[in-house]
Amino acid sequence: MNYLELIENKLKTYFPQGKEKDSLIEKVLIDSMEYSLEAGGKRIRPTLTLMFSEVCGGTVEQALPFACGIEMIHTYSLIHDDLPCMDDDDLRRGKPSNHKVYGEDIALLAGDALLTNAFATVLSEETVSLVGGEKSAKCGRILATLSGMTGMVGGQVIDLQSEGKKVPIDTIRQMHLKKTSALIKCACMMGAIVGSNNEEHIKIAETYGENLGLAFQIMDDILDVVSDEKSLGKPIGSDAENEKSTFVTLLGLDKCYELVNEYTEKAIKSLDGINGDTSQLKALAVKMSERKN
Amino acid sequence: MNYLELIENKLKTYFPQGKEKDSLIEKVLIDSMEYSLEAGGKRIRPTLTLMFSEVCGGTVEQALPFACGIEMIHTYSLIHDDLPCMDDDDLRRGKPSNHKVYGEDIALLAGDALLTNAFATVLSEETVSLVGGEKSAKCGRILATLSGMTGMVGGQVIDLQSEGKKVPIDTIRQMHLKKTSALIKCACMMGAIVGSNNEEHIKIAETYGENLGLAFQIMDDILDVVSDEKSLGKPIGSDAENEKSTFVTLLGLDKCYELVNEYTEKAIKSLDGINGDTSQLKALAVKMSERKN
Repeated sequence: MNYLELIENKLKTYFPQGKEKDSLIEKVLIDSMEYSLEAGGKRIRPTLTLMFSEVCGGTVEQALPFACGIEMIHTYSLIHDDLPCMDDDDLRRGKPSNHKVYGEDIALLAGDALLTNAFATVLSEETVSLVGGEKSAKCGRILATLSGMTGMVGGQVIDLQSEGKKVPIDTIRQMHLKKTSALIKCACMMGAIVGSNNEEHIKIAETYGENLGLAFQIMDDILDVVSDEKSLGKPIGSDAENEKSTFVTLLGLDKCYELVNEYTEKAIKSLDGINGDTSQLKALAVKMSERKN
Repeated sequence: MNYLELIENKLKTYFPQGKEKDSLIEKVLIDSMEYSLEAGGKRIRPTLTLMFSEVCGGTVEQALPFACGIEMIHTYSLIHDDLPCMDDDDLRRGKPSNHKVYGEDIALLAGDALLTNAFATVLSEETVSLVGGEKSAKCGRILATLSGMTGMVGGQVIDLQSEGKKVPIDTIRQMHLKKTSALIKCACMMGAIVGSNNEEHIKIAETYGENLGLAFQIMDDILDVVSDEKSLGKPIGSDAENEKSTFVTLLGLDKCYELVNEYTEKAIKSLDGINGDTSQLKALAVKMSERKN
């Protein structure tokens, strides 16, 4: 099985299925969580966790719970981000967003439950028996720190505060580092912790993830201008519509393509310190920098 | 210092303060989290964690991070519960609810960040050095399981689905067990894990917490009918207004007072299996059953 199939299959195991699910009065909550989780996406974050575990000497099996945990965090953030009181987006990955299908109340709670379930997954008895309590707790701590108030959620707040204003490039950079890079960095770092728990490996994972995240987010801003709704699976031009300052509005497209290449090269270069086969991680960074959606 | 002071003081340490806070672009997020966390309340859950740690042979110091973690979870659930797409409550503990002060977007994110920060707290390096990685991960797992999709959040969904309908008493009981008892039970169980990690103690903590939680929630339903807005710090009669079936609407006040006593006695009786001084836990159960707000 390839990484993607492994992730898809493992994700399903963390939710009540069949009779167990049907017997729950709150069944609709599980349906709502699965709806967004199964809406696909590129599964970049969990793939990074698996790849980093392998290049650092661990196995894919050991890294899978952490890969699933980070995808749950990413998915919850999308559900909450789409809510009317946030970006108010009706479409996500070409499908109606969670609250358009299940209502705002269930969507809010599905996000809360996915966020919570990420930690149940990373700290489960199965996970602890695979990697030990120390690594499990360490990954959980990094996941909470990088996705919380001074990480991803903090980045969301900077994003909200920047709407309709002309903000300096440093603020945009802070926002990207927190809103996007933090979680991508976390995915890489958890893989390194599972694989070797070697401080040098963790540091490399951090540098790779941070730069990949910056390249990824600037590409997102570029695609919001140059792509079309069908390729992107969501409305384009939403940044302009929301009067958002982005790297593109502040620096122009040419400079942004340059920056994407620069950050991608930095990410790739950082892998030199790892003694394993890092070709897949390099290829992934390149692929991300050339994506069309 | 008494339990309450210890909890209040420790809670503050988990948030950026002074210059560190002021330098954050997302400072308003921290303000919003602290606004709801400092709004007080009775701190019943964290107090239970401290008490159970002590009666099981642990210290208050070891239990404090877990006490703070559970209060963060409780507080996030109140912020999200008050949002317009949920209960749409303007008042909480006699003060404007979070979204009335900070707006819906920041309130949503403050809830997300408090939920996330609970796990950063329970899994922090300081916590692990106090109790070890195994207990830290085990508490985190129980916290995630009991507050998530088949625990507290599941209970919220049952609550939503029950609005404006006549629902059977069994559904209401399921709702209370998940929405209220699960987190109170969790507070007790984490204390027992920190104190001794003895399976019998954990089982007792579970039974005590579950019954205390049921008594607590039925008392809440009673107070919604018999109290006044000033004592309660929130609008009364909201259950009737929302056409909610409650223990009171289904069984009447007299039967409900009986049930509160019954569950309180069960909680107290369960403590017989612990060889320490359980007088404070017994007094707390009695006090809860006699509360006026």
